[in-house]
Amino acid sequence: MMTLSLIGIGCGDPGQLTRAAIGAINAADLVLIPRKGTAKTDLADLRRAICADVLINATTRIAEFDLPVRDAAEPDYRKGVDDWHDAVAAAWSRTIEEHLGGDGKAALLIWGDPSLYDSSLRIARRLNPLPRIEVVPGITSIQALCAAHALPLNDIGEPFLVTTGRRLREGGWPQGVDTVVVMLDGGTAFQSLDPNGLHIWWGAYLGLADQIILSGALTEVGPRIVAARQDARARHGWIMDSYILKRRP
Amino acid sequence: MMTLSLIGIGCGDPGQLTRAAIGAINAADLVLIPRKGTAKTDLADLRRAICADVLINATTRIAEFDLPVRDAAEPDYRKGVDDWHDAVAAAWSRTIEEHLGGDGKAALLIWGDPSLYDSSLRIARRLNPLPRIEVVPGITSIQALCAAHALPLNDIGEPFLVTTGRRLREGGWPQGVDTVVVMLDGGTAFQSLDPNGLHIWWGAYLGLADQIILSGALTEVGPRIVAARQDARARHGWIMDSYILKRRP
Repeated sequence: MMTLSLIGIGCGDPGQLTRAAIGAINAADLVLIPRKGTAKTDLADLRRAICADVLINATTRIAEFDLPVRDAAEPDYRKGVDDWHDAVAAAWSRTIEEHLGGDGKAALLIWGDPSLYDSSLRIARRLNPLPRIEVVPGITSIQALCAAHALPLNDIGEPFLVTTGRRLREGGWPQGVDTVVVMLDGGTAFQSLDPNGLHIWWGAYLGLADQIILSGALTEVGPRIVAARQDARARHGWIMDSYILKRRP
Repeated sequence: MMTLSLIGIGCGDPGQLTRAAIGAINAADLVLIPRKGTAKTDLADLRRAICADVLINATTRIAEFDLPVRDAAEPDYRKGVDDWHDAVAAAWSRTIEEHLGGDGKAALLIWGDPSLYDSSLRIARRLNPLPRIEVVPGITSIQALCAAHALPLNDIGEPFLVTTGRRLREGGWPQGVDTVVVMLDGGTAFQSLDPNGLHIWWGAYLGLADQIILSGALTEVGPRIVAARQDARARHGWIMDSYILKRRP
């Protein structure tokens, strides 16, 4: 029986690797590394660097494969994601079949934690035959963001919501919470909110050498984040960022 | 100037330690270990074991101190917490003063992640003089729970709420979300909900040798969790558990 190990590797800082992650990489017969054309956003270099850094098992092989592209023209978003997951599962299967056959332990290095805004667990369930699935948790960008700002995420005994940029834009400030974590925001959805009384803790390239953080009253810091984001994106060609908003009475 | 390093150590499994956490423990001049009388819940043994396991810096000292007890009789919950934080800050200060004087690097090993339902960051801000505060993120029980169940925490593009047992009991199912993580539940607050259409993923002693997990429809699994929890608590004398609820239309 095949085992598929989904290994959270944190968000770029090799210091975020856990001992379990290092153990799981070395326990794998095959490590799969996805490539997205020439894009830097595939983080293939980072995955290669992690393997070069921690892999001491000489029998572990590394196989790169081309990640299928999601059809952005598909009008039905759910169907587009669904088809893409099928295509990725097929690419995993082919690469595993080619290098391992039907037996052994394949591993994927997952940015952040496999349980948080990541598709790998869903894709893994589409494999046929279904492998044994093993998950190794990793440090997420939310945690890296809080650490960089030395910020307690929740207020004492209080809840918080983790949501997406799209949700925040469409639904405004969520009911029943004073703390909101915003992930997957391709833009600056915080601009859709009335900034009065809101504080923001923002970070880009968290855990990487280029990490930028900004925080303060949204009225003052919001425009600075918009500018910093534009500038960084132009400089790097890509950006990954997230932020926490708190409402202060 | 004093540096205080708050080091997330994960939730019990030594494999959850990150390389950065191990580095930070070894970079400390002093590691503070809190003791709560004879209680096992102080996890002092676990912290001692981690130090014994990873500490290779012969100059790093370890100092144990008695953690002040929160006055549960204080009718004002907030004031009780406030007074307790002051008392803990005073205990840290005394121990650091005694062993280090006013200079160097002191460290605390924080269960889970210092940013999540933990008071250390708030207590650190009460120290006088204020130290430089450094945070090393750690794997949380939410992540250990998801990993144990191989569960994606969020649904695709959907938000989730992290809340407390008390909030769930008092407020019922929160508005606007279909996924709820429940922390700090001293009991089984899920029993206050209509279980129809709800699924639960529960775990106790996550990451420890005694880890127990159960999942399924709340109608069926809820009563089994209540029984397993009672039984485990009686056997161990303490319990730490958390769970995720999802509403399935």
